[in-house]
Amino acid sequence: MPQSADRNRRVTLTTYPKGEPSPDVLRLETGAVPTPGEGQMLLRTEWLSLDPYMRVRMYETDSYMPSVKLGEVMVGGTISRVEISSHPDYVKGDLVQAYSGWQDYALSDGSDVMIKLPQDARHPSWFLGALGMPGFTAWYALTHLGKPKAGETFAVAAATGAVGQIIGQLAKRQGCGVVGIAGGARKCAYATGELGFDACVDHHAPGFPEQLAAACPKGIDIYMENVGGAVLDAVRPLFNNGARISICGLIAHYSGGGMDGADRLPAMLSETLFKRLKIEGFIIFDHYPAYYSGFVSEMTALIDSDEIKVREDLVGSLEAAPQGLIDLLHGGNFGKVVVKVA
Amino acid sequence: MPQSADRNRRVTLTTYPKGEPSPDVLRLETGAVPTPGEGQMLLRTEWLSLDPYMRVRMYETDSYMPSVKLGEVMVGGTISRVEISSHPDYVKGDLVQAYSGWQDYALSDGSDVMIKLPQDARHPSWFLGALGMPGFTAWYALTHLGKPKAGETFAVAAATGAVGQIIGQLAKRQGCGVVGIAGGARKCAYATGELGFDACVDHHAPGFPEQLAAACPKGIDIYMENVGGAVLDAVRPLFNNGARISICGLIAHYSGGGMDGADRLPAMLSETLFKRLKIEGFIIFDHYPAYYSGFVSEMTALIDSDEIKVREDLVGSLEAAPQGLIDLLHGGNFGKVVVKVA
Repeated sequence: MPQSADRNRRVTLTTYPKGEPSPDVLRLETGAVPTPGEGQMLLRTEWLSLDPYMRVRMYETDSYMPSVKLGEVMVGGTISRVEISSHPDYVKGDLVQAYSGWQDYALSDGSDVMIKLPQDARHPSWFLGALGMPGFTAWYALTHLGKPKAGETFAVAAATGAVGQIIGQLAKRQGCGVVGIAGGARKCAYATGELGFDACVDHHAPGFPEQLAAACPKGIDIYMENVGGAVLDAVRPLFNNGARISICGLIAHYSGGGMDGADRLPAMLSETLFKRLKIEGFIIFDHYPAYYSGFVSEMTALIDSDEIKVREDLVGSLEAAPQGLIDLLHGGNFGKVVVKVA
Repeated sequence: MPQSADRNRRVTLTTYPKGEPSPDVLRLETGAVPTPGEGQMLLRTEWLSLDPYMRVRMYETDSYMPSVKLGEVMVGGTISRVEISSHPDYVKGDLVQAYSGWQDYALSDGSDVMIKLPQDARHPSWFLGALGMPGFTAWYALTHLGKPKAGETFAVAAATGAVGQIIGQLAKRQGCGVVGIAGGARKCAYATGELGFDACVDHHAPGFPEQLAAACPKGIDIYMENVGGAVLDAVRPLFNNGARISICGLIAHYSGGGMDGADRLPAMLSETLFKRLKIEGFIIFDHYPAYYSGFVSEMTALIDSDEIKVREDLVGSLEAAPQGLIDLLHGGNFGKVVVKVA
């Protein structure tokens, strides 16, 4: 069922999953294309971003954002075409980065539009990845929290994922030794061969903690946490005094995993004290007003000059998006996951 | 057995305690008074500081500092009199804040001397408390990590202890609402009645978490962690977005306590992410070169003008020091614990 002008395909949440979600927590429905009111636009989704945080929005209780209500459309960042506009800042044909969610059509008063894409944008979907939320996350975490110094060791998990691929390349440009952690030899080979990481360790491999330690002979000074779980267990002993840890995601824990062992909090607190660690959580949405447009200029230049490489993992249709999200939550993706909706 | 000129009483570590230490892990011995060599001083201990970190130095494996070796003198900050000096900067009769440990006499080449006390110091022992390491810890944590804004809520555990009593008063001066946590109604009454805290909650009381929540109707913006354990469990749900948490001590965990329940690390990490927490551990010894002398001037003025109050808990003799430390580790102290050695 392709996108059409006279009906709206929408994917709604049917239930709040306990543990790992199955595809049937999301349901494809069709409805009428909505009609914009005064000051509104009708946006048509061309690309939908799939991101780990979506699992958090499936919680029954609110987290840092309200939960998606049962029967409502799943939230999500989109690249959308303006089809109708009575908004003074946008005209029909504009391409915008919006937050229309998992559907073909959405109304917008402009408040969810992060940016109007340049007319000549070669790869609009990159505004969901390297030039969008994940890339901005990487840039903010490194620049404002990691504050790298040349010669330091930077480590990141999900190294070829949407955030990891960008932050690793940025850290390398700052003169850091860059060590990635990824699931599988193929991703690791890409991180070192294509992205220029100094090392990449497969967290599925036997002896992963020892291999990671061997890959970080000078310890770890900066760590971007987007996983948690067993990966963090292997990283923790390697933190140097004064290490900076930014927490932008915890994919290993979003479905309640990794909570059945002994209490690790006292040990983590002791390490924080003894090693003078600086641990900072952040939600990137807070930082759009101050920094996003500057980031886009900077990152566009880096991509255009081929100094930063971009890898996407394409999901071919809105129908395939639920399974795409589940794969992403299990590390099945290889690059930034985007759904071709149009 | 009082201090004398012709023998050196010294308290040594007999064993690395597992769990809570008993008094016999420390033993009082006597030996000869050492003779200083070229460039050295002979220091005579007048006051010895007892501090929670001493438990950490009794670990079998090194932590942020090397462990005390079995049979060696326990480490500790002291106010000491220079008895003999061939050091160019000190003369006989000078009073210094040094790190002589639990003994009457120690040699020093000056490297462990933090400060020479002013000639007119009214209360030399205060240089082990409000004007010494704990006071400096409080000042540094608030000024450099907490960065309080007027109207924010500041909370601290061990509220009448060496660090808590100072940081609470400093936070109050910055316009914060100040909430203490202490063990027992007497300490709480002192915190609100004498120290000027807005509230103080007894962590032994039934319904402590609910009482703490009621005392922090606007949540907690800044928290000084020196306890951990059940106190932290009650504090965590109250953190506001963007709360700053400085970790200077974890007395509830030093003897291995509080590790037998479910794993709290995933939840703490999620809170760090969702609430954008900033958690920073520090070891105050790192910051003496940059800030200590400025701190002493500032704090001396505040104490002299009675803007900051100081409460000590006196241990009468070196013989009583082992039990004094054990009491401190169980929260039995009421104020900064100092041992009158001379």
